[in-house]
Amino acid sequence: MADRTGRHAALEEVIDRVAESYSGQQEIDSLESAALPNRRAVIDALNHIKSAIYLGFYSTRPLDQSSLRFRISEHLYPAYDILSDQIHRAVTYHDTYHERRPPRPREWSEQVVIRLFQQLPTIRALLNKDVRAAYRGDPAAKSVEEVVFSYPAIEAITIYRIAHVLYAEGVPMIPRIMSEYAHSNTGIDIHPGAQIGESCFSDHGTGTVIGETCVIGNNVKLFHGVTLGALSLPRTEEANLARGRKRHPTIEDDVIIYSGATILGGETVIGRGSIIGGNVWLTESVPPGTKITYDPRLRRRES
Amino acid sequence: MADRTGRHAALEEVIDRVAESYSGQQEIDSLESAALPNRRAVIDALNHIKSAIYLGFYSTRPLDQSSLRFRISEHLYPAYDILSDQIHRAVTYHDTYHERRPPRPREWSEQVVIRLFQQLPTIRALLNKDVRAAYRGDPAAKSVEEVVFSYPAIEAITIYRIAHVLYAEGVPMIPRIMSEYAHSNTGIDIHPGAQIGESCFSDHGTGTVIGETCVIGNNVKLFHGVTLGALSLPRTEEANLARGRKRHPTIEDDVIIYSGATILGGETVIGRGSIIGGNVWLTESVPPGTKITYDPRLRRRES
Amino acid sequence: MADRTGRHAALEEVIDRVAESYSGQQEIDSLESAALPNRRAVIDALNHIKSAIYLGFYSTRPLDQSSLRFRISEHLYPAYDILSDQIHRAVTYHDTYHERRPPRPREWSEQVVIRLFQQLPTIRALLNKDVRAAYRGDPAAKSVEEVVFSYPAIEAITIYRIAHVLYAEGVPMIPRIMSEYAHSNTGIDIHPGAQIGESCFSDHGTGTVIGETCVIGNNVKLFHGVTLGALSLPRTEEANLARGRKRHPTIEDDVIIYSGATILGGETVIGRGSIIGGNVWLTESVPPGTKITYDPRLRRRES
Repeated sequence: MADRTGRHAALEEVIDRVAESYSGQQEIDSLESAALPNRRAVIDALNHIKSAIYLGFYSTRPLDQSSLRFRISEHLYPAYDILSDQIHRAVTYHDTYHERRPPRPREWSEQVVIRLFQQLPTIRALLNKDVRAAYRGDPAAKSVEEVVFSYPAIEAITIYRIAHVLYAEGVPMIPRIMSEYAHSNTGIDIHPGAQIGESCFSDHGTGTVIGETCVIGNNVKLFHGVTLGALSLPRTEEANLARGRKRHPTIEDDVIIYSGATILGGETVIGRGSIIGGNVWLTESVPPGTKITYDPRLRRRES
Repeated sequence: MADRTGRHAALEEVIDRVAESYSGQQEIDSLESAALPNRRAVIDALNHIKSAIYLGFYSTRPLDQSSLRFRISEHLYPAYDILSDQIHRAVTYHDTYHERRPPRPREWSEQVVIRLFQQLPTIRALLNKDVRAAYRGDPAAKSVEEVVFSYPAIEAITIYRIAHVLYAEGVPMIPRIMSEYAHSNTGIDIHPGAQIGESCFSDHGTGTVIGETCVIGNNVKLFHGVTLGALSLPRTEEANLARGRKRHPTIEDDVIIYSGATILGGETVIGRGSIIGGNVWLTESVPPGTKITYDPRLRRRES
Repeated sequence: MADRTGRHAALEEVIDRVAESYSGQQEIDSLESAALPNRRAVIDALNHIKSAIYLGFYSTRPLDQSSLRFRISEHLYPAYDILSDQIHRAVTYHDTYHERRPPRPREWSEQVVIRLFQQLPTIRALLNKDVRAAYRGDPAAKSVEEVVFSYPAIEAITIYRIAHVLYAEGVPMIPRIMSEYAHSNTGIDIHPGAQIGESCFSDHGTGTVIGETCVIGNNVKLFHGVTLGALSLPRTEEANLARGRKRHPTIEDDVIIYSGATILGGETVIGRGSIIGGNVWLTESVPPGTKITYDPRLRRRES
């Protein structure tokens, strides 16, 4: 009993200490952040949108032309409500605490969602090309259905194409929550700011990084462990100065980049139709049609 | 009110557009796919089978010899029902839409599940060797229990050994759904078609890729970021032509492959007892007992 | 009907075989392991602690100074109960079956949790510096909130800093369950035994491995795919002999390590202020202020 009381007292004591540590001096002490978007709600909305995009693949009930419109509305209505709300939270917080201005009205967020939905037919057409590129490009793919169901590249690019619209609309925080959800599930890290053309496929995908200011053309195929990144900042330069500047490479149409290749720098352009071999490390442009392979020096000893 | 109506009208309008985008011209427009297997159900069945394999490790109630059989049946009965159903969906869809033939009867799927369950004692013996290999091979492993509980390599190879049986039985889609679930959780991408011997361990594992037609012997240890992949396809060749052909390497017994090594090609054989150093890039065979290390050219500047 | 009976009999038969495979000869046959900690409960406790650390960021209800203490207690009370219980399970199992001694009393586990909670203000201060380092170090970071919400590096290091306290207290199994949960979510594999100083940031993170006996100073920045690992064990040496020995490198203050770099060995020291370029492979020490870059040999062919 005494011991029970002792433990209770000890616990109350540490709770006091933790509460005191919210001194307001630290960024993570912010209590206003309770008005921030809720990650789980954002993912919930995202999954509704994915269901509307690949209706036949996520449906657990029989589906035909007559029920199609109703079934889409079953996903887009909740997606609209949840996403408008979460965007409004993000925007209100951002405008109030970062921009120090009156927040944009709720209508702004609702209109963004409507504009995102207006792009869904276009996004669906793009994703269909991505699915075809994955099936065509991977001898291990058994069917288009397997690709839609299980390929991490499709999960990653589906979420990217949705998040990119919101990024382009100037929605704070939400696009990155979406893309990091995809990153966590797939190991593929596509910043929502990247610009990616048609028929993009990332085979296996784990460890692939596509930076914020990348520009990628059509029919580009990337393997796993590919980095399209920034050159290092000089020590003395704050990251702030680099914000907004083009820091990541441009990959033209019909390029293939094999696993583990690293391509860095905002002025680096990989010309159309080039093939970049595995483990290649590139910090400068190459003209169209270049084939670059890595020539490893190996030491061999036989027993 | 007018505005509310305006938003409602806008939403109804975009739903129309999305419904229209299901024109039937695109693969992802398929509505028959509603009869496809359900990913969540497949994972549910998989978790029941994992519980039957490692009963003591997943049990939340006391367990003894007298309750053992009952507790196994508590997992295998639902696993049987769910998995038979999901396999039947996959097979029916595949036969109807891909093979254009009358679908195999439900009994076919049920018998596949029985045959998978018949192999569970063998699978358990293999996994026990994998667990021992992980414990023996990793100085950071504190106990066998820690290995079973938390090692991604064990999660990945457990799911691989189950999925591989279904792959060998000719079950469409389901094996890949299982292996991509493991890939998402562990970063280890083992195609269910690969052939992997006894006592396999992948330390850390993130980014390791084992392709569909790999053949791996006994006592092979792989670190993270290892690619056992295919050579590039000639540009002009469709992936279709490569389907079914051996495209990935053979790794003989007692080989160690360190992190970041890449070994490519269906005719590449890494001879027994060889050691492949980190970051090595290999596209040809090496005889037994070879030690290959990567000899990096570095530029050094001291300040 | 006959067939139904046949299937039932076949299922009963395989259940017998699976039950028989629990012969007690294999490590995974252990039934005592039913007394082991429950992974889901450990993760539940971890999420309560994360909520207490970043209260404003995880809260779904408005929050102010007056409700702060109560809201923290809402997380720390359940965290205390769950974690005491799980640690007690792990310790009892470990002492009974591994140490073959009378298990430590329940109070031991409760006191460990109290000591962990006593360190929460310190952990919060460290994490705030990690958040600042991430924001400062990444030009793609739009706000501190985005960093806390979505950066895998913050998820990984938050869990590391909690797990490390339990590791240092000698709690078996639980720290590794926590760190492998982080590894699964983020692709960043930080062993709870590693020692990591202030203001650590791992950009992108996928595939980064920080071994058990690493010592990392302050203001160290790592990119994705960085390995701070052990040199290979001689074939003849059992992992057992290496347990406890310093096997992983020391990274001094203000070092930057770019993507894909590999640094191995317990005696390897990367001197203060050094810059290790992408894909560099190092197995020996470098003095302070060294800049090392990888000089790839590439073969180029233009069409």
